[in-house]
Amino acid sequence: MAKPLNEKLGRSDVHIEDAFWSSFTELVRETVIPYQWDALNDRIADAEPSYAIRNFRVAAGLEEHPYGGMVFQDSDVAKWLEAVGYSLANHPDPDLERTADDVIDLIAMAQHENGYLNTYFTVKDPGRQWTNLYEAHELYCAGHMMEAAVAYYEATGKRKLLDVMSKFADHIDSVFGPEEGKLRGYDGHQEIELALVKLHQATGEERYLRLAQFFIDERGAEPNFLIEEGKKRDGYSLWAGRNLPIPKVEQLAYNQAHKPVREQEAAVGHSVRAVYMYTAMTDLARLTGDKQLREACERLWNNMTRRQMYITGGIGSTHHGEAFSFDYDLPNDTVYAETCASIGLIFFAQRMLKLEAKSEYADVLERALYNNVIGSMSQDGKHYFYVNPLEVWPKASERNPGRHHVKAERQKWFGCSCCPPNVARLLSSLNDYIYTVSAASNTIYAHLFIGSEGEFELDAGTVELKQQSQLPWKGNARFEFTKVPGSAFALALRIPSWCRGNAALNINGKPAEYKVENGYALINRNWQQGDVIEWEPAVEAQLTAAHPEIRANAGKVAIERGPLVYCLEEVDNDSPLAAVSIVTSSELHASFDSQLLGGSVTIEAEGRVDEQASWQEDTPYRPYAQQQSSRSIQLKAVPYYLWGNRQKGEMTVWIRVVKE
Amino acid sequence: MAKPLNEKLGRSDVHIEDAFWSSFTELVRETVIPYQWDALNDRIADAEPSYAIRNFRVAAGLEEHPYGGMVFQDSDVAKWLEAVGYSLANHPDPDLERTADDVIDLIAMAQHENGYLNTYFTVKDPGRQWTNLYEAHELYCAGHMMEAAVAYYEATGKRKLLDVMSKFADHIDSVFGPEEGKLRGYDGHQEIELALVKLHQATGEERYLRLAQFFIDERGAEPNFLIEEGKKRDGYSLWAGRNLPIPKVEQLAYNQAHKPVREQEAAVGHSVRAVYMYTAMTDLARLTGDKQLREACERLWNNMTRRQMYITGGIGSTHHGEAFSFDYDLPNDTVYAETCASIGLIFFAQRMLKLEAKSEYADVLERALYNNVIGSMSQDGKHYFYVNPLEVWPKASERNPGRHHVKAERQKWFGCSCCPPNVARLLSSLNDYIYTVSAASNTIYAHLFIGSEGEFELDAGTVELKQQSQLPWKGNARFEFTKVPGSAFALALRIPSWCRGNAALNINGKPAEYKVENGYALINRNWQQGDVIEWEPAVEAQLTAAHPEIRANAGKVAIERGPLVYCLEEVDNDSPLAAVSIVTSSELHASFDSQLLGGSVTIEAEGRVDEQASWQEDTPYRPYAQQQSSRSIQLKAVPYYLWGNRQKGEMTVWIRVVKE
Repeated sequence: MAKPLNEKLGRSDVHIEDAFWSSFTELVRETVIPYQWDALNDRIADAEPSYAIRNFRVAAGLEEHPYGGMVFQDSDVAKWLEAVGYSLANHPDPDLERTADDVIDLIAMAQHENGYLNTYFTVKDPGRQWTNLYEAHELYCAGHMMEAAVAYYEATGKRKLLDVMSKFADHIDSVFGPEEGKLRGYDGHQEIELALVKLHQATGEERYLRLAQFFIDERGAEPNFLIEEGKKRDGYSLWAGRNLPIPKVEQLAYNQAHKPVREQEAAVGHSVRAVYMYTAMTDLARLTGDKQLREACERLWNNMTRRQMYITGGIGSTHHGEAFSFDYDLPNDTVYAETCASIGLIFFAQRMLKLEAKSEYADVLERALYNNVIGSMSQDGKHYFYVNPLEVWPKASERNPGRHHVKAERQKWFGCSCCPPNVARLLSSLNDYIYTVSAASNTIYAHLFIGSEGEFELDAGTVELKQQSQLPWKGNARFEFTKVPGSAFALALRIPSWCRGNAALNINGKPAEYKVENGYALINRNWQQGDVIEWEPAVEAQLTAAHPEIRANAGKVAIERGPLVYCLEEVDNDSPLAAVSIVTSSELHASFDSQLLGGSVTIEAEGRVDEQASWQEDTPYRPYAQQQSSRSIQLKAVPYYLWGNRQKGEMTVWIRVVKE
Repeated sequence: MAKPLNEKLGRSDVHIEDAFWSSFTELVRETVIPYQWDALNDRIADAEPSYAIRNFRVAAGLEEHPYGGMVFQDSDVAKWLEAVGYSLANHPDPDLERTADDVIDLIAMAQHENGYLNTYFTVKDPGRQWTNLYEAHELYCAGHMMEAAVAYYEATGKRKLLDVMSKFADHIDSVFGPEEGKLRGYDGHQEIELALVKLHQATGEERYLRLAQFFIDERGAEPNFLIEEGKKRDGYSLWAGRNLPIPKVEQLAYNQAHKPVREQEAAVGHSVRAVYMYTAMTDLARLTGDKQLREACERLWNNMTRRQMYITGGIGSTHHGEAFSFDYDLPNDTVYAETCASIGLIFFAQRMLKLEAKSEYADVLERALYNNVIGSMSQDGKHYFYVNPLEVWPKASERNPGRHHVKAERQKWFGCSCCPPNVARLLSSLNDYIYTVSAASNTIYAHLFIGSEGEFELDAGTVELKQQSQLPWKGNARFEFTKVPGSAFALALRIPSWCRGNAALNINGKPAEYKVENGYALINRNWQQGDVIEWEPAVEAQLTAAHPEIRANAGKVAIERGPLVYCLEEVDNDSPLAAVSIVTSSELHASFDSQLLGGSVTIEAEGRVDEQASWQEDTPYRPYAQQQSSRSIQLKAVPYYLWGNRQKGEMTVWIRVVKE
């Protein structure tokens, strides 16, 4: 193994206290986590039962029922426990901790003697373990529970679940591997890889890192494991309940198993699987110093974020396979842009930042977070978008089957609810995404501007840093060193792409120059306790155009302000929204509306509405010359993350332009 | 029964001789019909075998094979025979007639003693006749063979197939009906209804008309036959090969069997089924004087053509169920607009014209014919579009599964090839669509401007009329009476919507006034042999806008000239086509290009291309202000029906506008 790159990374401990974000983290703590707990216990009226906890009780021998829910139902319990871990770390809660401890006891009781743990194969299909990696999500569920174990251990210091999952990891290590007699396989849905890296970091066990590496290295190698495995089952599919044709290697692009990961050029296939895998690849590239793997990560990052990403940070442009399609194919109306995929993109971005602090990674992370991800959750924390469209026509969502997957309203909890627990675990660990620390180069990188208190370990010593932020509404973040080590170290402040290079720096009230490195303002000095840094990236409403190859956005602009993408909703504007255009020379007026859904900056602009009065309802086509002049209106745009919280109606991010 | 309205209709006998259309009818005669014959006999290299003729040989007891092809494979033979009938009527061909006679002999041998005729149920599933009307297309296949029988009888005077199908109709009449012990059912795919009307007209048998009426009246009545039938089969589906849930009544909108036809408000469900049914309803409304049925026809016509029809005359905006979606939902890129559906729309329009000569019906008929229908066929007659998009991005067709059904190139013959034989039978009977005749009111209505010689029977006597037309390239049609009865009668010339009221009339070289009635220029006089009428509806290139509720076309125009819709192709313009816009004030230059695919008027206009050079390939989004001024280009539009005949590339009908 080459010299691990992560030796440079320093420990950090950050707690959020932020006007904008605390409401989200509190919503998760006070509403989402308890609501999920009820969901896992089948106590939500008119939601499909989850059976998730019941399955564990059955597997533990406490009750008798048939298995319920999806094959990967265990992962819902895992994601909940992981979110609980993060929540407890930031906000101790003895009652919640007791509930979690009980769940962990139950999980331990469901574990087999040899370490195996999976309620589906324990309850429903005993004896068939490891025979259908392609479909059965066994390693995927294991991975989520490992993530939960690490989070819970780090929050509470309690090892029980960590030990359970280490024992399972040991068992997995005895089943999978390159050695004779072991399975040279991997999961149909990547997740175990990034989880094993976390387990390795929490336990110090090198074997877990090597096992993650094995899964990554083996993926897509010839002969293709998923094909060979399918042949052994005669193509039996547990989803179809009968034999299906053996998948062809090109179909395995869905699972990113069509060729070795190091040879993959573009983001393809199921987008959540993809970003979970890229996350693990990036971890491994950093921890093992694997240059080829790092190049693959950079290549896939570039392809995905520069050619296949919506302006909202959404990825995956087709609901067929919840997948990427191809470069520049970003339809706004038939989009997928799953919430979970953007969360995975955030994981990937965070790992890229650990590999190299480059503002581009944080720009994408922030874009996905402030738009696609928080936009997925309703203000009550109980309704979610799984699909996050950039253009909605409610009637089409109801009556055109090609758009049924695009919902005009957030949905109640599903029996199979991948996205809500993912939102919960991300938002309750958001403190881990604000900074990275290079201990060796004594640098604290501030990627996100979120009010928080942090403690950082540098080679130079311990630093305590308080951040106050007025983002996203105002371009002002204030940093104060409340503890310094006495020798020089650097603070690197991200210059967000949205400020377009216009960011002022004040140190202790005086304007200061700064050096730019990789998109960060780097200020290296012998900081004193009480030093105050004011960082003012310009937050200005502006119009954004899309690359001409993105055909869906031709002749259109989006409105952005700071990290927020804006949209037009029917309730504030005219209908149909397609008849509305924006005067590109018009001034964009931003103003804070304290009445709007908890308070938000809205943006007004001069617009036009195509004349409609002279059209007869039953004239589909007529001479263009009959068109009368368009009418002026005041357009009103609201942040994308707030759409769909007032009434059902049309919505669009991209707006036609009129030059006048 | 009320007084039949059709007593007014007079006999007509028309033969086409037209510069534009003869090439199509000759292509059908010389290439399509022989090619189809080879296809039916499984002699086309690299096409899936049809098995259609083989199935008849097996059913006739001449050979032993398993049944091959779709459950409705018999209908391919029927459509071919029908086209042959029309072709022989216009162009005798003893060899072809001998081949057809042999096929008819074969069909007769496959008929059961009791009159039943269907190779699927004879060969593959004997004993299950009439147990799965929902899926098995038994009456549908019968209907197509009845249409063939009538066409062949009318062309050749030979009764053999007519007798076979009358015997089958008698058998069907003994199986279906309101009487105790008979099936109160109807087919899942409408077709028999319009065919029975034809059989009634050819044979004079009133029972066939009453049977058609029974099928129409019964459809959608409670208790729903298709649901009850499904229960008897335990939901067994021959497509799925297993039991499926019994369809719910709202799902039967797919088959237009969700409510009685007289109560249906909007065009819904599978679009071919819909228009075949509306055609029969219109026939019945006319022949039985059923006012309520007529109102339903008018209501469905209005909904479909005014709110759910593409500018090309395409209908059916979603490939899910090859169906209508809802009012104003006309996406250009995920469109279906099946060729067969536009052909059915032409049938429906023709029947509406028989019910009432109103130019609107002919406008739609012409629109569908000159654009969607002839555009479906390649110049070699051997490749077809089943789906007729208004916007194509070839890469998306290949790589975005939601657009896989939209092909960028015409496809070779399918094993299940519904559209090509439908094109063949329509084009070889095009002579029947030019005129209708009201004998009682002594009026000849000229709906289409297609060079032809016609003989018409009016109450006033026999008229012979020669039409010469320079359409679609020039707005000139010349009519000459070569035989007149000696007393007054009227010629009614359609004022096409595309001339926008600008149509000059000359009689014997002198400008003449005319009265307008229902969109026709009505000239009633004591015509003399040798009288010459010149009719000059203005053919001018013009820009057309779409109703603002049609969101897909917002901010866009189409180019039309006479009956032809135009489009931009990548080969003549820039790529991506989405970056191109048209200057609405620019002059549209039309010129005849004799080199273009057999000669065609192309249209040039001033356009702009969004500046692209300053974009970096890997910058998906950037400030709109960085956009540099667009570049001027000369846009070149070609008739939509010619698209995709040169090289694979982007195509669009709707073009973004720039006002300058």
